[in-house]
Amino acid sequence: MQMKPGLVQMKMTADPKQNLEHAITKIREAAAMGANTICLPELFLTPYFCQTEDASWFDTAEAVPGPTTVTLSEVARELEVVIIASLFEKRARGLYHNTAAVIDADGVVAGIYRKMHIPDDPGFYEKYYFTPGDLGPGVFDTRYGRIGVLVCWDQWYPEAARMTAMRGADLIVYPTAIGWQPEEKELFGKAQREAWIAVQRGHAVANGTYIAAINRVGTEHAKDGSGTIEFWGSSFLFDPIGKEVALAGCANEEILIGVVDTDRIECIRRAWPFWRDRRIDVYGELLERYGDR
Amino acid sequence: MQMKPGLVQMKMTADPKQNLEHAITKIREAAAMGANTICLPELFLTPYFCQTEDASWFDTAEAVPGPTTVTLSEVARELEVVIIASLFEKRARGLYHNTAAVIDADGVVAGIYRKMHIPDDPGFYEKYYFTPGDLGPGVFDTRYGRIGVLVCWDQWYPEAARMTAMRGADLIVYPTAIGWQPEEKELFGKAQREAWIAVQRGHAVANGTYIAAINRVGTEHAKDGSGTIEFWGSSFLFDPIGKEVALAGCANEEILIGVVDTDRIECIRRAWPFWRDRRIDVYGELLERYGDR
Repeated sequence: MQMKPGLVQMKMTADPKQNLEHAITKIREAAAMGANTICLPELFLTPYFCQTEDASWFDTAEAVPGPTTVTLSEVARELEVVIIASLFEKRARGLYHNTAAVIDADGVVAGIYRKMHIPDDPGFYEKYYFTPGDLGPGVFDTRYGRIGVLVCWDQWYPEAARMTAMRGADLIVYPTAIGWQPEEKELFGKAQREAWIAVQRGHAVANGTYIAAINRVGTEHAKDGSGTIEFWGSSFLFDPIGKEVALAGCANEEILIGVVDTDRIECIRRAWPFWRDRRIDVYGELLERYGDR
Repeated sequence: MQMKPGLVQMKMTADPKQNLEHAITKIREAAAMGANTICLPELFLTPYFCQTEDASWFDTAEAVPGPTTVTLSEVARELEVVIIASLFEKRARGLYHNTAAVIDADGVVAGIYRKMHIPDDPGFYEKYYFTPGDLGPGVFDTRYGRIGVLVCWDQWYPEAARMTAMRGADLIVYPTAIGWQPEEKELFGKAQREAWIAVQRGHAVANGTYIAAINRVGTEHAKDGSGTIEFWGSSFLFDPIGKEVALAGCANEEILIGVVDTDRIECIRRAWPFWRDRRIDVYGELLERYGDR
């Protein structure tokens, strides 16, 4: 049984209920198109609220598993698809994570992953909301295959992709919320988008693993008027030699469908056996902050 | 004082003396074009002898520093350029390495790096010739800047690029010998070359560092007729956001000239502060062979 990823690039409204309904509609569409492993963008229930630091957003967090996974579990069981859902997790009063739940095709939550690398930059104030994940890499066996989950900012870290691939992920998915800020777009926009694709394509090659990003699309304004993000879409699937299987546009909702061919992973890793030669005896300094001591 | 890399993509003949003279001619050309940090391809003194396992090649190895670095030191001092020379190092009777020497602009050998990751595949029998390097990453202060050196197969390992960048390399150079085998070229050639570029472009983005590869070009036949490699050139320089600064063709000798702008490194690392957020508390499993225990 092959994994057939369905990558749902979507827009969000201000209304969580409406976003959930819309996501379920898109999951049904993806399943009808042949996908059996369907991934939604980062924090798909809400606007990207990290544009500001506002404590009222903590009201939208929930337990994971919790109400949303219960609803999505019914959809997963009905359609017999795996669903990867990125959620704002309330773990305890005052302790929140940016978490992805993997729901297996029988509706059972196979596991959760808590985003390990948390950004914090003007317009992306995530360190205010999310404690860095304490579960390590997230790799889960599902009915259709072994999937690894990382989230957005994790995608810039080769260490995260490597650890996830080391646990046997044939596909790594990155639910994402990344876009252009209007004041930067003209000067840096092209380079930013290309760098974002390039670094993840590199993970595919280095690890001999399928890599997918699932981004938001559309323009969102901060509630307090302090900023705007134009999410650049461009969701993609790369194969284990870094070949582009699918790439979405920058402006519209789209569903990308692909296939994870484990024979191809085997073939490519035999031709270029990078896994054979890692120098684990000298990698110790990767555990340092920097090489100046 | 800025580093101005000069990347010498060249062809080799069967005659080491001729290859050295040709390399010196190219170094003079690069210096005349404005380069001050000049890098030659992997094992530039000889044909790529690892196409077969033949003990007579050990006769061509030398101490590093040794005769070739003495000759190149004179050139470096005369032209006031840094030279990065990849050499077959004889360390002791029966102990050989694939080593790169960094010669500073005053002719003094700033240091050596011994290739850490050694391939071994049909036509690339490097494990027969080279013991894996025991010096760790190679980063050296030169008159024009802080340069990191890795060699060929190292380029597939994000760990190697990360460790080198952690020691402050503003530019990482990869002397290289990679090409197409005729029996694979039609089916896999395009994907292979693109993957090779993609993974290194990823290192540039992930580390916010300039990355250069310096490859051979031309077709070489194994002495015993067992195989052929068409070295694909395509030497390149990427900037710290993964933008292509220069890219050579696949067929001819070329010299690429660039500039390493440390203000740009600063600017890009401020905009995307990946270095701030590495999760060194959870990277311990990178020291394992695989994630199954």
